[in-house]
Amino acid sequence: MQENLYLEDASFILSDFDIQKIEENIEQGHEEAVKIAVASLNAPNCADLLEKVSEDNRQIILNQHASAIAPDTYVELDPELCKDVLEDMEAPQVAELISSLESDDALEVIENLDADYQQEVIRKLPSKIRISMEEGLRFPEYSAGRLLQREFVAIPQSWTVAETIDSLKATSENDIPEFFSDIFIITSDSQVSGKVPLSRLIRAGSQIKLDTLIQEEIYSVPALMDQEEVAQIFRRENLLSAAVVDSQEKMLGVITIDDIVDVIDEEAQEDILKLAGVKKPNIYRDVISTSRSRFGWLLINLLTAILASIVISLFDATIQQIVALAILMPIVASMGGNAGTQALTVAVRALAMREVSNINSSRVIWKETIVGILNGIAFAGIIGVITFFWFDNIELGVIIAVAMIINLIVAGFFGAGIPIFLNRIGSDPAISSTVLLTTVTDVIGFFVFLGLAAIFLI
Amino acid sequence: MQENLYLEDASFILSDFDIQKIEENIEQGHEEAVKIAVASLNAPNCADLLEKVSEDNRQIILNQHASAIAPDTYVELDPELCKDVLEDMEAPQVAELISSLESDDALEVIENLDADYQQEVIRKLPSKIRISMEEGLRFPEYSAGRLLQREFVAIPQSWTVAETIDSLKATSENDIPEFFSDIFIITSDSQVSGKVPLSRLIRAGSQIKLDTLIQEEIYSVPALMDQEEVAQIFRRENLLSAAVVDSQEKMLGVITIDDIVDVIDEEAQEDILKLAGVKKPNIYRDVISTSRSRFGWLLINLLTAILASIVISLFDATIQQIVALAILMPIVASMGGNAGTQALTVAVRALAMREVSNINSSRVIWKETIVGILNGIAFAGIIGVITFFWFDNIELGVIIAVAMIINLIVAGFFGAGIPIFLNRIGSDPAISSTVLLTTVTDVIGFFVFLGLAAIFLI
Repeated sequence: MQENLYLEDASFILSDFDIQKIEENIEQGHEEAVKIAVASLNAPNCADLLEKVSEDNRQIILNQHASAIAPDTYVELDPELCKDVLEDMEAPQVAELISSLESDDALEVIENLDADYQQEVIRKLPSKIRISMEEGLRFPEYSAGRLLQREFVAIPQSWTVAETIDSLKATSENDIPEFFSDIFIITSDSQVSGKVPLSRLIRAGSQIKLDTLIQEEIYSVPALMDQEEVAQIFRRENLLSAAVVDSQEKMLGVITIDDIVDVIDEEAQEDILKLAGVKKPNIYRDVISTSRSRFGWLLINLLTAILASIVISLFDATIQQIVALAILMPIVASMGGNAGTQALTVAVRALAMREVSNINSSRVIWKETIVGILNGIAFAGIIGVITFFWFDNIELGVIIAVAMIINLIVAGFFGAGIPIFLNRIGSDPAISSTVLLTTVTDVIGFFVFLGLAAIFLI
Repeated sequence: MQENLYLEDASFILSDFDIQKIEENIEQGHEEAVKIAVASLNAPNCADLLEKVSEDNRQIILNQHASAIAPDTYVELDPELCKDVLEDMEAPQVAELISSLESDDALEVIENLDADYQQEVIRKLPSKIRISMEEGLRFPEYSAGRLLQREFVAIPQSWTVAETIDSLKATSENDIPEFFSDIFIITSDSQVSGKVPLSRLIRAGSQIKLDTLIQEEIYSVPALMDQEEVAQIFRRENLLSAAVVDSQEKMLGVITIDDIVDVIDEEAQEDILKLAGVKKPNIYRDVISTSRSRFGWLLINLLTAILASIVISLFDATIQQIVALAILMPIVASMGGNAGTQALTVAVRALAMREVSNINSSRVIWKETIVGILNGIAFAGIIGVITFFWFDNIELGVIIAVAMIINLIVAGFFGAGIPIFLNRIGSDPAISSTVLLTTVTDVIGFFVFLGLAAIFLI
């Protein structure tokens, strides 16, 4: 009987309660109960379990119940954790595991291993799979070639619908993907000439020739294309699958939408983390390497903070005379940083979604600059009045107001301009934009405010 | 003849050069050339064109060549821009446009219109489409009901493969989606009992009963489920489509992966923008409403900056005596802010990806705290030495070092703790985490550094 699982109780997603129960069983030594529980989990749930239990309990599950774990679990696991888990296993065991996966999943698992161990595992693989892994690894990281699945359906263009369906029925399960939604049509010299969606094939008359069913536009992906570009094409054209071709336009394999969903997640994740200076999404990473991976970014930030301090030190005599300046100066810098970050985030995201290109980039920068002027005027008024009442000093109020306008204009201009500039010179705008922007808004913020004060108040 | 478009030259994606050529033709009044160019574009490219040309040229294309624009273009357009464009058109024209779209796309376009205009357009729709739009709009925003496509294939479970294929062939094109990858199997009282992938159907013997082909697990989505949850399920289970059901578990329609890709993009976009206090991805929004939409966030930031200033003002006498404190104090606060943002971003993203739940949240907070201790010690050493050499004052070096350690520990603890806490009390962790964190790291940063100085240096 089929299990019909409705989502109101989300019963097919492992709950915290289920995980707790399994952890209790582990701690009380109920091995059989744990084994049954683990074996009953599908891959996403089993990955969830391994990710969320404590490290000790994870070791127990992996050591005692490895055979109960569905092989696909390792594909669904956080890559960092997957690497750690597999590197604790024996190479032959990993090889066996990899042999049971589809080629794209197998490559995804194997590419994370350290080079030496990877070679050891590859040597243990059956020759057919070994060759396909070696070929896959020859493609650069994050390229289409790394995503491709070598199991696909390709039919000569001269065939009829009936011939195609008969041949699909005759093909053994091992030579065909478990699920597919498109059939690729190839010419006599293995070039892709198009793609027929199954939903079109199944409704066509049996004597119809395949080449009359081909979808109008073909989006073949060269094996060396960056995965972010590939995702962009799937997204734009609402594709379910695309053929990957070599430089002779011969078909190497197929990329399917489920892999692209992972890429989209990964890229969005990367952007958001890069903006904060985090290299990898690493809640499973150990503390030492996490600290180390964050150190570089913090060091750069320390240097920019020191740069800001040097600017302040230029005005130490002024500050000594009017301490109110020391009290107020972080406000101008911080507002510039925040307003700039708003503009920057919008620009980084728009660049990632290909909404901004050379043709409209100056319009985007100009717009953010005007937004800076408008909000600059608004906040100049607010902070000017507050300062006047706080320190009973109208000149100080005017000076902070002017500094605020200038810094918010600078923030808008550089907030949009820095990522657009970095993108144009071929740098990743998400990586260094934030630091550059903060340096600008801090330095200008402190310099303008303290400089104006030095000129007009002393 | 089929157009075979290879991606090495990405010739099927509209280039800046193509756009420039069209803009030149518009400006030189070559109406016919513009019309031919626009008519030759598929929906994604035409949306690109409208997004990237100047506002004047956009108006000309829309006014003079509306008939040349593929209706799907409006679905691909940035929602903000789509709303503006449609609200400039006459209601009957919009109604005609909407009638030519699939039901989920039609709803996506119509739901963005202002309430009054929306009603006007709906009244002009053919009754069948009107009812489906009205039903769709009754579901809450961002729910599964808003995403569902009413064109789907549902087959009684008692049918054989041959009967199913015959019926698919006999169905008119208007009653069936253009592409589909799964067939839904329903019981005699319209409940979903499962789903058969086309790739399985097409390989099955013609006398096989459908219910023997059903996929093991069914993931029916209740119409009221939040779209983010739905996306999570598609992602976890690698689905291409899922049935949407009402509270009686009757099938209302289907959600397909291409809509989910948009949801995933939207949600990732939202998180990244919310962290920076930007409400909507709005490079197409006018300057005034953009400024206004950013004002609130900046105002809150102004208040936290003033709070930090108040903390500083507690120590004004100390600063007057030792100006070096004013010079150095932004360093401690800024390092706390940056280290905290790293922890915060990782936590927000892990929460969004459901990698953190109650069961492992304290482990995540604890880990970030330790990372804070380690990097705190490292940067305490660096800044202590720098300060000693800069101001030739060993006590000042020790004090800033201690303040740095304390603030980086605080940053780690609160950086992970704030979003996890907000998530637990049911708030969106992306929205207010940053402000709360900066307040904490600024206040503690200034207070600890200046406080220690006041105690030990004076």
